[in-house]
Amino acid sequence: MGMDAAVLINGRSEDRVDAADRGFQYGDGVFTTLPVLSGRPIFLSLHLARLERDCARLRIPFPGVSLLQAEVRQLCRMQGEGVLKIQITRGCGDRGYRPPAEPNPTRVIRLSAGIPTRPGLPGQGATIRFCQHRLGSNPALAGVKHLNRLEQVMARAEWESDAVHEGLMSDGAGALIEGTMSNLFAVIAGCLVTPDLSHCGVAGVMRSVVLATACADGIAVEVRPLHPDELELATEVFLTNSVVRIWPVVALENRTWSVGPLTQALSRRIEAQIQAESRGET
Amino acid sequence: MGMDAAVLINGRSEDRVDAADRGFQYGDGVFTTLPVLSGRPIFLSLHLARLERDCARLRIPFPGVSLLQAEVRQLCRMQGEGVLKIQITRGCGDRGYRPPAEPNPTRVIRLSAGIPTRPGLPGQGATIRFCQHRLGSNPALAGVKHLNRLEQVMARAEWESDAVHEGLMSDGAGALIEGTMSNLFAVIAGCLVTPDLSHCGVAGVMRSVVLATACADGIAVEVRPLHPDELELATEVFLTNSVVRIWPVVALENRTWSVGPLTQALSRRIEAQIQAESRGET
Repeated sequence: MGMDAAVLINGRSEDRVDAADRGFQYGDGVFTTLPVLSGRPIFLSLHLARLERDCARLRIPFPGVSLLQAEVRQLCRMQGEGVLKIQITRGCGDRGYRPPAEPNPTRVIRLSAGIPTRPGLPGQGATIRFCQHRLGSNPALAGVKHLNRLEQVMARAEWESDAVHEGLMSDGAGALIEGTMSNLFAVIAGCLVTPDLSHCGVAGVMRSVVLATACADGIAVEVRPLHPDELELATEVFLTNSVVRIWPVVALENRTWSVGPLTQALSRRIEAQIQAESRGET
Repeated sequence: MGMDAAVLINGRSEDRVDAADRGFQYGDGVFTTLPVLSGRPIFLSLHLARLERDCARLRIPFPGVSLLQAEVRQLCRMQGEGVLKIQITRGCGDRGYRPPAEPNPTRVIRLSAGIPTRPGLPGQGATIRFCQHRLGSNPALAGVKHLNRLEQVMARAEWESDAVHEGLMSDGAGALIEGTMSNLFAVIAGCLVTPDLSHCGVAGVMRSVVLATACADGIAVEVRPLHPDELELATEVFLTNSVVRIWPVVALENRTWSVGPLTQALSRRIEAQIQAESRGET
């Protein structure tokens, strides 16, 4: 990091935080990640809305949309393309888990240069695997993009080959939930299915954009528990996150798919929305 | 923090860490907390052994016993009494969950002045409650004192009254696991029972000292699932952590206990071990 990243911490250009910050002590905070294209942060309003919702879930005071917007714009003026990460923690506190009565949240906004290429795209898509590491069930934290991400770290450590692009994680009962850094969609019997995230998982912004787009286009959508065996029946599988957008899956262990018509149609629709965002037309 | 704490980060006297540290990004690290009495860190060797074991669980390179011992001693020379916290993270990395191939761990050692008083002691003990917030099940992380502590933060936020000293947390199935910052013991039918931590919870150093002491003294011990209803049958209940040691429970919701004979006997034995540690006799 460093050379190719610009960082604002509480509005100041610096890159260090107090070691007593509850983000460092307990992972007591939330974050979001989004691409910046042509100087414009893509779907920023959705990301800020999600941050605000997640802060409310953890009862962290939200710094406010206009303050975060201003700081994001400041970074985007310095660097017009890259990956933006916004992190909000409960700030410093006394020793112990008890949240301070009047927390003073820390906000860290980092714009890293360059957009990671999507492996295999265009045309080929992602090769993925199943992870052994399971997601713990916790309805009170489910859906929140918080800073307790050891499960994802452990799952991502399960493979080293660059030929495998993502791993799927299941809950303790074996139901599929998501990828380590992406949400999961499958087309089964003509219906777009994505796992229910009411007891674990991260409700990604791109997942919500895909769901909204599919509904607007009259595509049948089901948000429900999804068993690994069901992927045998899937005619299309794709992953989503805000940086890679729609990421077609072409191989999972011994099963292969081509990039299907629904994946292509949704991808065109999403890319059009992103193009409009990057031209400032929204 | 700050004024009444001395901090060493990677051996240097400073109090800030890189915001790109994986401890701050993902809670990707471990920690331990212990008291310093008469300039001596109590049960330091057990805490370092636990840190080494926990680092191995997360595949974080352990900085080594002798290095940590030297830095701890350096702080204890500056301040002879207080609470010592040792934190080890996977250090900085590139964007993304994937652990760096050659991590450069960060170690933060903080000695805070003063030992917190144990509410209600001596004689009266702790008044506790049940927490609503559940612990997620995750055998791969169970027992590890890692930096993903949002569950404890959420549980500790459930009450504000200083008259309640600790809260008990259950797993998703309703079995008791631990307090937000302590382990749980109950005497049931003459047997010392503490919850099994194979799918969630933190295996505290003081818990292991109590278990070893009880076994050495011929006390019957059971490490097994413990249901809240069973506390109705308990003749004694106590909590443990490295700072408060053995902490008798005198009230839980509508149930009350006096400080029983087994609690007193174990407490005397543990205090004797701590006195020996603080005189450097071990």
